[in-house]
Amino acid sequence: MKIRYGMVGGGENSFIGSVHRQAAALDGEYELVCGAFASDAVRSQHSGLSLGLSAERSYADFTTMVQQEALLPADQRMQCVVIVTPNHLHLPAAKLALQHGFHVLSDKPATFDLAECRALAEIVRKTGLLYGLTHPYVAYPMVQQARTLVAQGRLGTVHKIVVEYIQGWLSSPLENSGHKQASWRVDPARAGNSCCMGDIGVHAFNLAEFVSGLEVTQLRGELNRIVAGRQLDDDGVVSMHFNNNARGVLLASQISTGEENNIRLRIYGEKAGLDWQQMEPNSLWLRPNNQPAELFRTGTAYVGEAARWHTRVPAGHPEGYIEAFANIYRAFAGQIRAHASGHNPVQQAPGIKEALRGMAFIETVVDSASRDGWLPFPAV
Amino acid sequence: MKIRYGMVGGGENSFIGSVHRQAAALDGEYELVCGAFASDAVRSQHSGLSLGLSAERSYADFTTMVQQEALLPADQRMQCVVIVTPNHLHLPAAKLALQHGFHVLSDKPATFDLAECRALAEIVRKTGLLYGLTHPYVAYPMVQQARTLVAQGRLGTVHKIVVEYIQGWLSSPLENSGHKQASWRVDPARAGNSCCMGDIGVHAFNLAEFVSGLEVTQLRGELNRIVAGRQLDDDGVVSMHFNNNARGVLLASQISTGEENNIRLRIYGEKAGLDWQQMEPNSLWLRPNNQPAELFRTGTAYVGEAARWHTRVPAGHPEGYIEAFANIYRAFAGQIRAHASGHNPVQQAPGIKEALRGMAFIETVVDSASRDGWLPFPAV
Amino acid sequence: MKIRYGMVGGGENSFIGSVHRQAAALDGEYELVCGAFASDAVRSQHSGLSLGLSAERSYADFTTMVQQEALLPADQRMQCVVIVTPNHLHLPAAKLALQHGFHVLSDKPATFDLAECRALAEIVRKTGLLYGLTHPYVAYPMVQQARTLVAQGRLGTVHKIVVEYIQGWLSSPLENSGHKQASWRVDPARAGNSCCMGDIGVHAFNLAEFVSGLEVTQLRGELNRIVAGRQLDDDGVVSMHFNNNARGVLLASQISTGEENNIRLRIYGEKAGLDWQQMEPNSLWLRPNNQPAELFRTGTAYVGEAARWHTRVPAGHPEGYIEAFANIYRAFAGQIRAHASGHNPVQQAPGIKEALRGMAFIETVVDSASRDGWLPFPAV
Amino acid sequence: MKIRYGMVGGGENSFIGSVHRQAAALDGEYELVCGAFASDAVRSQHSGLSLGLSAERSYADFTTMVQQEALLPADQRMQCVVIVTPNHLHLPAAKLALQHGFHVLSDKPATFDLAECRALAEIVRKTGLLYGLTHPYVAYPMVQQARTLVAQGRLGTVHKIVVEYIQGWLSSPLENSGHKQASWRVDPARAGNSCCMGDIGVHAFNLAEFVSGLEVTQLRGELNRIVAGRQLDDDGVVSMHFNNNARGVLLASQISTGEENNIRLRIYGEKAGLDWQQMEPNSLWLRPNNQPAELFRTGTAYVGEAARWHTRVPAGHPEGYIEAFANIYRAFAGQIRAHASGHNPVQQAPGIKEALRGMAFIETVVDSASRDGWLPFPAV
Repeated sequence: MKIRYGMVGGGENSFIGSVHRQAAALDGEYELVCGAFASDAVRSQHSGLSLGLSAERSYADFTTMVQQEALLPADQRMQCVVIVTPNHLHLPAAKLALQHGFHVLSDKPATFDLAECRALAEIVRKTGLLYGLTHPYVAYPMVQQARTLVAQGRLGTVHKIVVEYIQGWLSSPLENSGHKQASWRVDPARAGNSCCMGDIGVHAFNLAEFVSGLEVTQLRGELNRIVAGRQLDDDGVVSMHFNNNARGVLLASQISTGEENNIRLRIYGEKAGLDWQQMEPNSLWLRPNNQPAELFRTGTAYVGEAARWHTRVPAGHPEGYIEAFANIYRAFAGQIRAHASGHNPVQQAPGIKEALRGMAFIETVVDSASRDGWLPFPAV
Repeated sequence: MKIRYGMVGGGENSFIGSVHRQAAALDGEYELVCGAFASDAVRSQHSGLSLGLSAERSYADFTTMVQQEALLPADQRMQCVVIVTPNHLHLPAAKLALQHGFHVLSDKPATFDLAECRALAEIVRKTGLLYGLTHPYVAYPMVQQARTLVAQGRLGTVHKIVVEYIQGWLSSPLENSGHKQASWRVDPARAGNSCCMGDIGVHAFNLAEFVSGLEVTQLRGELNRIVAGRQLDDDGVVSMHFNNNARGVLLASQISTGEENNIRLRIYGEKAGLDWQQMEPNSLWLRPNNQPAELFRTGTAYVGEAARWHTRVPAGHPEGYIEAFANIYRAFAGQIRAHASGHNPVQQAPGIKEALRGMAFIETVVDSASRDGWLPFPAV
Repeated sequence: MKIRYGMVGGGENSFIGSVHRQAAALDGEYELVCGAFASDAVRSQHSGLSLGLSAERSYADFTTMVQQEALLPADQRMQCVVIVTPNHLHLPAAKLALQHGFHVLSDKPATFDLAECRALAEIVRKTGLLYGLTHPYVAYPMVQQARTLVAQGRLGTVHKIVVEYIQGWLSSPLENSGHKQASWRVDPARAGNSCCMGDIGVHAFNLAEFVSGLEVTQLRGELNRIVAGRQLDDDGVVSMHFNNNARGVLLASQISTGEENNIRLRIYGEKAGLDWQQMEPNSLWLRPNNQPAELFRTGTAYVGEAARWHTRVPAGHPEGYIEAFANIYRAFAGQIRAHASGHNPVQQAPGIKEALRGMAFIETVVDSASRDGWLPFPAV
Repeated sequence: MKIRYGMVGGGENSFIGSVHRQAAALDGEYELVCGAFASDAVRSQHSGLSLGLSAERSYADFTTMVQQEALLPADQRMQCVVIVTPNHLHLPAAKLALQHGFHVLSDKPATFDLAECRALAEIVRKTGLLYGLTHPYVAYPMVQQARTLVAQGRLGTVHKIVVEYIQGWLSSPLENSGHKQASWRVDPARAGNSCCMGDIGVHAFNLAEFVSGLEVTQLRGELNRIVAGRQLDDDGVVSMHFNNNARGVLLASQISTGEENNIRLRIYGEKAGLDWQQMEPNSLWLRPNNQPAELFRTGTAYVGEAARWHTRVPAGHPEGYIEAFANIYRAFAGQIRAHASGHNPVQQAPGIKEALRGMAFIETVVDSASRDGWLPFPAV
């Protein structure tokens, strides 16, 4: 039985809505059964029909969707809500869904700010329902393998982490010419108090903590507004201390002309360093001290269990972004089934803990930058 | 409305069956409604059930499947058959399907030998139904862009083509230890008269003709049996003349230890050369004479229409093998809808022409190698 | 006529002494005529003899060398002194040489601290002699081309600079086991007040200013002592503002296990970004907004005059570190000849200005790090 | 004491003459003492003077040079002759030099044809003097390491060799516009019976035999004349059998537009494959079956003795073409000193054996291509 999901946001012309639907479809584990795809009822319905939904389940708004779906028989109504709206709508949608008994799988950042995320966490705790967060980059096979190598001690004690997320698409003021993706991201009312760190820096932060198994304990952020007229950051750098005393630097930028979606993680330990880049995701470097560097590859026989679980095809057949995204969906499907049957899931998608740490990261970076000094990472 | 398809072969533990299903699922255009997944009725049914099919549409064999499906109401029965068996079963399955009114989408090589393929072409012609062939490598966005660049004259007259398909997985006699994928490929009774050229060389041939827009007019093949005890080639090289008098070399190998799935196409013209590698499929090099080389990338604004049509996500989000495979499925879905409505499809999956040329390639290489001399490429 | 040079430091087992001699030899413009190769007279003489010098010109110490050489006939005595000692000896050697009428070509950093460098600058000014500083990385052909591209306006206004110099060789306390190179670099009495920034960060700083044509106006340094027991930094990060208001980040590390000598410069402008890496020095990326990236290559016909001047062999024949180093020597040879003849030299090696800015950089980073705040870049 | 050498050919504007002089200079082991740099006496003298030679040792022709030098005192006259003329002059120059008691270091191919080379070998044998051949590509550190890995058995039995030497510079008829380098290479009277195979294919052949430690036993060549009007090949492919029954393919081309100097060697054994590319010469891949690929790098602590001997600077400081070329010179210097002292040299430059096999390769490829069939490799 496929898992039935409804979607909030992500209508026609949405980049990320389409990615979510492809990710859900890839493994045949999900079925889209309803949606409230746009803030406008007519556009929402149009999107639903074009996606093959019936008119009655192409809802005018997400409140109606949640209420109506809750009235359907258990074997027909949606089981989880996928949230792909701008940031300011994440909490209202998630809250309503959880309160009506639906699991939630949300795009990042989790909420508009940290206070909202704490409220969300409380609702998740109370309802006992599942909350997943789509940080797809941790779901690449070679990121999983990187985490395995760190956990196996192949690096020894971690000393230094350098993580980057570099883009160039906002190097000119696209928002002034009505570019939809740009417009809401640079708008404090919809994006929150950060553009660059909230949109992409948080992925880099999540990636660093996931692979290293460490946690940031204090940080100092520096935020730049390179393109004239912007209220929010479009570039920045964050210095970090980790809970084993390792040091770290996080670079995030949306104004680095010519860069596509350049995520890179380097972790240096006492025994070896590792290096992974999202734009060649099926390769992972391990560079031991005074030995030849080793290249780990997706789909090979020598990688660990976690990497295998996240892989679909044999070595040499590239797996990409949609496959990584689909791994989040696949893990979350397993969680839903396990939740229903009372078992433990095999894999866990990023969840409320990652949501809280991500929002704490964004907020602390912004505070730190405005004070120009180090701040402790809040307990969440 | 999704297109309903049935599958022949491709049961549990099949690599390529799973790839086909994911490719069909990705864009939400297809629905698997039935299958005859294995030569053994019990295993076939088991596969069908595990894929969520009902027992009655998890058929014991493909003859039953085709006959039973033909009896179902038009809006329920499958519309096309996907064939993912070993090569010797391709023609019988395709023939039966076409004769019962079903379109066919087949794995390559099209048939057991060229004579079979000619018979198949005749049936396709007579029935007026659609035949598609899954050469997924031509469906990568940057392969489409490569073809566009050649067609635009960016290379000038093509002088030389070097195409390679290099693997290492058969560098030891896996077939002796019961490896299923290896066993049938090295068996003349199931694979036909070639292992390496039939399994992978034909992809390289197809890629070279597709991108260059040229046709091979004569060739000389040299086939090696590197691993002791094999009856069929596991390595080889083919010299080719093209119909504009360009020269070409095709390298194919399954015994090149350490290589994964290393497909590379280089085309050299009077004005520029191009270079594409499957293991980094989102990059395409154009190297003009005495100017900086240019790197074309998937998902960018500057690529042509064909590349765009084959792309799902923005630049910097890698697209992989399954996406390329899904592009074949998406094109074929368009063909099926266009066939039904009497329109022209937007894109064409490789079809019976590519099937015939592919089988002619394999057969001519084998003949040429046994005679140790040049042979004309047969008219097909 | 070859230029006659003497060497201070750089005896047997010295890495950098050997590099200097090879760089001097490559183009046939220099002849080593004397040296004081070690702090110990016996070892110095031994080195001189093994390098083919006579015993009388294998001096016991550099004071003797300078004094004795000054007594030789003009057509026999050395014309310039090459200084390759640990940092604390740079000024004494340079001062003595200049005061005795010899040009100086010195390894970096120029002096022990900024005050010393100001004193040096004064001596250079007064004597009217030539002072060169071996920042070899700016002398790679593609770094020259990068500067040309910026100067030509191919990037438009520069917005962001990211420069890195990452090594791993000090990731363990080599200095505790008598490793000569490590020992003096981590010793404040010989290296000055910085290890990592003084040894390699200053190269990255020089590279960023050279290529961008911009100057740092303020900075904030953060220095880490990762390996226990060290008094000086072995890792750090510097935020920078440039005089056109561009932002920059400089990463330097000697504890990044597995890294060799990983220098990388990325400059992002409003129209394009550029990217160069020292470990593949013959390639330079220019990535324009919304066009294919362009790869500039050493030895091609399409590069500018400066790149050509720094190139020896045709495209595809890799030029390396010694060639870059030799370009500094070649430029300085031209300066010496031009000085003698009263003409203008064709090329200028990095000189006293770069010396001052480099020492100011090191000192300001150290001060800034100890105060944990931004500091203006001193006027020099 | 430096080794005194004279040069035949390689005057001003000669690419390869300049490379030889830089290679000789780099390590301070050689001193240029005389030359006959051009076929024209005036130009020869001009070149000599501009290189700092005296007028009397800037000879009008090589016959005069050899005769006059032989009359000089033993501690003044040249010790070896470096030959960098077009191919048809190699034998006369080498013969005269050897007969007058001078060692010879010659550019490749050794002679005009195989018969000449056999004659040369006989003279070398009779005189007991040294003969070296500048195949610089085998003198890269990572090529030496590749040979070491094969010899250590890291690949197991070698099954397949693919070697390429691909250039694009002759993709248009440069020879028609007076391009000096192009003109003699396409001229049968000066180049011999092959352009592409004689100029670059022979390097690829030498590289394959050197690294594998195997010898070609039979081959079939196919030669193309892509650019209209050429009498000699500008492109070709050679199939080879080796003396352990391994198979090989050699691709050589000078008309592959956009390619610089793209030499690549892949060797596949039963246990691992290796891969080296000249344009990134400091990296060497070893790809074991079912384990992560390993990247060997120049200048590291873990490489073997041979690679170390051929290395000058620590890892991460790229070594290039001139350094490789200089390694040939350094080895030959050691041979000259060992010859004088009666010891064994530490390293051997390629010599008369490589000369014979290279000429046999060229001649057999040409014969084979004209007969369109396999030929045994001649005993030499």
